[in-house]
Amino acid sequence: MPPSKLGEESIALHKKFAGKISVKPLFKVADRHTLALAYTPGVADVSLAVQAAPALAYDLTCKGRLAAVVSDGTRVLGLGDIGALGALPVMEGKAMLMKSFGGVDAIPLCLSTKDEEEIVRVVKAIAPSFGAILLEDIESPKCFSIEKKLEELLDIPVFHDDQHGTAIVALAALINALKLTGRTDKKSVKIVIAGCGAAGVAIARLLHSYGFRQIHIADSKGAICNERTDLEEYKKELLPILAPSASGQASSAPASLRSLLSSADVFIGVSAPNILTPTDIRFMAKNAIVFALSNPIPEISAEDAKAGGAAVYGSGRSDTPNQINNVLGFPGIFRGLLACRAKKVSPGMKLAAALAIAKLAAKGGLTAEKIVPDPFDKKLPRAVAKAVMKAAKKEGLAQT
Amino acid sequence: MPPSKLGEESIALHKKFAGKISVKPLFKVADRHTLALAYTPGVADVSLAVQAAPALAYDLTCKGRLAAVVSDGTRVLGLGDIGALGALPVMEGKAMLMKSFGGVDAIPLCLSTKDEEEIVRVVKAIAPSFGAILLEDIESPKCFSIEKKLEELLDIPVFHDDQHGTAIVALAALINALKLTGRTDKKSVKIVIAGCGAAGVAIARLLHSYGFRQIHIADSKGAICNERTDLEEYKKELLPILAPSASGQASSAPASLRSLLSSADVFIGVSAPNILTPTDIRFMAKNAIVFALSNPIPEISAEDAKAGGAAVYGSGRSDTPNQINNVLGFPGIFRGLLACRAKKVSPGMKLAAALAIAKLAAKGGLTAEKIVPDPFDKKLPRAVAKAVMKAAKKEGLAQT
Repeated sequence: MPPSKLGEESIALHKKFAGKISVKPLFKVADRHTLALAYTPGVADVSLAVQAAPALAYDLTCKGRLAAVVSDGTRVLGLGDIGALGALPVMEGKAMLMKSFGGVDAIPLCLSTKDEEEIVRVVKAIAPSFGAILLEDIESPKCFSIEKKLEELLDIPVFHDDQHGTAIVALAALINALKLTGRTDKKSVKIVIAGCGAAGVAIARLLHSYGFRQIHIADSKGAICNERTDLEEYKKELLPILAPSASGQASSAPASLRSLLSSADVFIGVSAPNILTPTDIRFMAKNAIVFALSNPIPEISAEDAKAGGAAVYGSGRSDTPNQINNVLGFPGIFRGLLACRAKKVSPGMKLAAALAIAKLAAKGGLTAEKIVPDPFDKKLPRAVAKAVMKAAKKEGLAQT
Repeated sequence: MPPSKLGEESIALHKKFAGKISVKPLFKVADRHTLALAYTPGVADVSLAVQAAPALAYDLTCKGRLAAVVSDGTRVLGLGDIGALGALPVMEGKAMLMKSFGGVDAIPLCLSTKDEEEIVRVVKAIAPSFGAILLEDIESPKCFSIEKKLEELLDIPVFHDDQHGTAIVALAALINALKLTGRTDKKSVKIVIAGCGAAGVAIARLLHSYGFRQIHIADSKGAICNERTDLEEYKKELLPILAPSASGQASSAPASLRSLLSSADVFIGVSAPNILTPTDIRFMAKNAIVFALSNPIPEISAEDAKAGGAAVYGSGRSDTPNQINNVLGFPGIFRGLLACRAKKVSPGMKLAAALAIAKLAAKGGLTAEKIVPDPFDKKLPRAVAKAVMKAAKKEGLAQT
């Protein structure tokens, strides 16, 4: 497939600068004395001070300002397994946005291994240089266990953005979309999630912890439900928080995505391009909410969703309104994590981030084309960082 | 030991800036269109382009500009094994100088493992993001095998600075010191190296490849010589390039460092602080050349070396003349390696770097206090980079 017009422009821009980030000294080394302070012999005493009191690394080195954006390139955007080098433009982009929006220094680390244990070992080994780790575009189900293992091994936050970043921004958008369409009873809102990978699982969990009780989720074979015998462990673990899904016509078959959509208030797609038509949306409740987050090509276009009667539409793209994209979350989240020297990131901190994003958008007045903040709103990363820090302190997970 | 006055000032400077480097976006992301180019959806086509033609990573990402400064903290400066966090101020300093002097983007990666195999695995895994790897402050003998294995595994240059950086700058300084003291016959110059770790081994090899034939090297037990039965493998491998060392008084004991110094033209110390006195220098030939490179405290001070009759003195410190410090080498070397997209760094490229450094200093007129270039001389990294690139192209190791 030849590049799109936008893609061609993007390639030209990347070529012009040879990428998107560079490293910058924080002060000038213009004379011998400064050289003796920044490097040998002066730096020896800095090293000894940090060795004696490791927490000083946050005060005297880049550690407390630096995040690693780590990927093995196995599930990049909607492109699948394109390898470490293929993933690099995306990870460098993420590092760039971390700085542009959140003021956080970050560098891309694309790994030449896809082995779960090896990825864990590598991230553990490089952790001393960093104050936080962003995991990105690692395929499921190994993304779950890699994150879990690293959380146990490390004393810095580990955050898989495809899971939690997506879930946080989706919840923020949903809170405002429900407000806009006059739905006030969390427990009765029927939500259908399409896609049961990293994002789908995390969205289901975060939505449940927020208080939603009518959550359905489907993979390519239909509804995740008790009746299915083919479920991987991480899908089975979701069953307790899901609403029972009525079976389809064949008694042994799980409910299809389309039958789940019947009378649904909310569709959240984190699955595949172009899987829905206007007809599918007409099955949903009146004033339906449609978040089509498959990226870069959504499950259904804005035009088609509206043709089907959707009242509110959002996608992950930056070239349509309501960009329900992680870029609204991770810069502020990492800014908060690093500012309070958090040791980990908790469910409470994730919920706090979602509420802060929703609140900021609502402040400006909600419309069907404005349920999330503008990514360029400078108040956004500050508000998210503040909320994350407050929650971290409340839970005793902050070091300052 | 409380910090020195310089150390206290260094700690204060590090605290003021919280370290020494930050990450900088190469262009502003100030509107939706630029966001769509730098990140999703535009970046998808950049990723696909790189996946299809991996060499494009050099054109479209930070890879070709980015070096990793990797250490396990086992042999930091003269401080020994101070761990990954203790090493971070030094590696961040190196990354900073890489940019300040060489225009090369670099980041510190301090590893929480000391295991040889693990270090190899980790560096191999993170290599896709980088155009070159600087290994630093890793103890011997594992530093030799780590470098060797990585050279075989990776298609980017791997350069252990404690070995080759030190050797390159020492050779450059020596070429000029010999010129200054009127020594013209390489083969008859008697050279004694104290310290048979990473630096000592690399210096011996580079000096030999340049044409010196009277090279002696001693570890803490005395001369490395055929008679010794306690030699580690990497020391044994040096024997063919060493001059025979006369045994000491006891027939079974190897020659001591002091007896080796008898009539020596050149002393190069890469060993331990304060091991020599003026009396030791008096054993050497007239107009002796003394390079005391133990860092931060040299084998002998400038004052004491001169009291013993040394004609030329250099140390690794930035606060005395003739700073025979790697900072003269690595910024330009890495600039050259990255500029020509070198696949590896060869002995020929190292020799070319040394000759370029020596030549630049000689251009300004040699004196006993100026045998190496000023680290602030902007012509230095350019000259070194040019020499490295030329050698790489000649050997077919450049990709552009």
